[in-house]
Amino acid sequence: MHDKIVVALGGNALGKTPQEQINLVKNTAKPIVDLIQHGHQVTLAHGNGPQVGMINLAMDTASKTAASTPEMPFPECGAMSQGYIGYHLQNAIREEMLGRNISKPVATVVTQVIVDKNDEAFVKPTKPIGAFYTEEEAQELITEKGFDMVEDAGRGYRRVVPSPLPIDVAEKEVVKTLVDNDCIVITVGGGGIPVVKDGNKLIGVPAVIDKDFASSKIAEILDADYLIILTAVEKVAINFGTKNEKWLDKLTLEEAQQYIDEGHFAPGSMLPKVKAAMMFASSKKGRKALITSLEKAEEGIEGKTGTLIINE
Amino acid sequence: MHDKIVVALGGNALGKTPQEQINLVKNTAKPIVDLIQHGHQVTLAHGNGPQVGMINLAMDTASKTAASTPEMPFPECGAMSQGYIGYHLQNAIREEMLGRNISKPVATVVTQVIVDKNDEAFVKPTKPIGAFYTEEEAQELITEKGFDMVEDAGRGYRRVVPSPLPIDVAEKEVVKTLVDNDCIVITVGGGGIPVVKDGNKLIGVPAVIDKDFASSKIAEILDADYLIILTAVEKVAINFGTKNEKWLDKLTLEEAQQYIDEGHFAPGSMLPKVKAAMMFASSKKGRKALITSLEKAEEGIEGKTGTLIINE
Repeated sequence: MHDKIVVALGGNALGKTPQEQINLVKNTAKPIVDLIQHGHQVTLAHGNGPQVGMINLAMDTASKTAASTPEMPFPECGAMSQGYIGYHLQNAIREEMLGRNISKPVATVVTQVIVDKNDEAFVKPTKPIGAFYTEEEAQELITEKGFDMVEDAGRGYRRVVPSPLPIDVAEKEVVKTLVDNDCIVITVGGGGIPVVKDGNKLIGVPAVIDKDFASSKIAEILDADYLIILTAVEKVAINFGTKNEKWLDKLTLEEAQQYIDEGHFAPGSMLPKVKAAMMFASSKKGRKALITSLEKAEEGIEGKTGTLIINE
Repeated sequence: MHDKIVVALGGNALGKTPQEQINLVKNTAKPIVDLIQHGHQVTLAHGNGPQVGMINLAMDTASKTAASTPEMPFPECGAMSQGYIGYHLQNAIREEMLGRNISKPVATVVTQVIVDKNDEAFVKPTKPIGAFYTEEEAQELITEKGFDMVEDAGRGYRRVVPSPLPIDVAEKEVVKTLVDNDCIVITVGGGGIPVVKDGNKLIGVPAVIDKDFASSKIAEILDADYLIILTAVEKVAINFGTKNEKWLDKLTLEEAQQYIDEGHFAPGSMLPKVKAAMMFASSKKGRKALITSLEKAEEGIEGKTGTLIINE
């Protein structure tokens, strides 16, 4: 079976410094190239939380001290993070493929993800980004820049941005063309640069699109067979961390919804992954979403492990 | 005549801040889309001098002051600049096309350009990048980081990096696939992320590849008909700025070489443009390189203005 697969990697797996990232992507590349070597067509999506946070903080810090560095809006920081992460990731995949005598083109496409300007997420921003501030600094940012700031677990104040749902991928034709021509594409990095449509314009908005939802969207667009959402654990569990803990092999959409309603999955952690998996699985009969760890991705595709969410 | 064209834009035309860049790319997009509207297949390359300098300075400034921002190597800053510039440029072109009912995919490919590790440029770095330092700071950077530092016209010390020649484009298959499928591609941004080959690895090196040479290389790879190198003037001149000033309509390779030998073209300004134009024109019979201004690009293709360098 040669499947078309979209793999969603976590940004936390990419490290906090360029050197860490270069080292970590080498390990990331191996299971990805296993999938490629077995004949699957793989497209990669990835998070960028720590990386865009770092870039945003650096730009912010510098704009206050260095005369010739401007303030950098958040979507532009996201665009930078796609170049930065894609550069390392594509090289690690290229090297791993060449080491196995696989010669397929691999490239990063700077990708914008379109969100609805009326998405209710814009009413109440919830996603913390960037540095911590004192209450006074936070008040200044609210007044001067109109930022939304919240107190974060006693560690200080942070800016929060909305986390709207992806509705389309601006560069979808480009990604499709490359995938149809057997290229390995890195796309929707960090969930994509968030933009809203205004007539013929695409306008960047300070927001963070969940990378698992963005991966689900591009998987739909590509008519993928599988969406693999990688996480730290091999399977999804209910009653996680209790004596009734139970690891799940397979979930129908109804079962997944029931477990969500029962509060089994942590918001900001397993919940968005399960929801993104459901979103993809429900988009068309036969589409399968798999939640597992990077190391187990291939065994998961072979049906040996992971949690499969299917539309039955 | 529907030609395949590579257009090389200067980084100075893109502005120093995100807001400047968003405004400037709107004007840049118009003549580019004129070419597209007249049926030409256009691929875009661009410089990144001011932008990568800004990113490099910001990263450098922040790494000294903010605890959680790492030092960022120069090639990674280049990768960031490709995302940052490509994001704005692709949107401006998209918007201008949609305004004329042209619906072609446009996208930025994060692009690495391979240089020879034995390029003589590595022996004597000449290209200044980033901030100005005092003599003491410069000495420290030489000792601690092994940077090459030079005194820059009384304004202080700056880091210099080599400017090696491009020998190949790592993502060429991806760019070719997109161009063959009628996509507008933004590639080799800033001359490309400079990398050397080491077995199966591509390793980033602190260097700046001249964007006109990189444009010539990708134009060769794409088997383009035209390379258009955009500059501030409509034509190339000899005896520039003197009473014998003469604007040139057409140059054979021999004439161009003769004028170079006579010292007509300023290093770091018109000289690399003429050399890059010659490199492309000499790569195959029939290939034409045009040096002109952004506004005159289309008239140039129609043979009405600009300086054409041809292999006769």
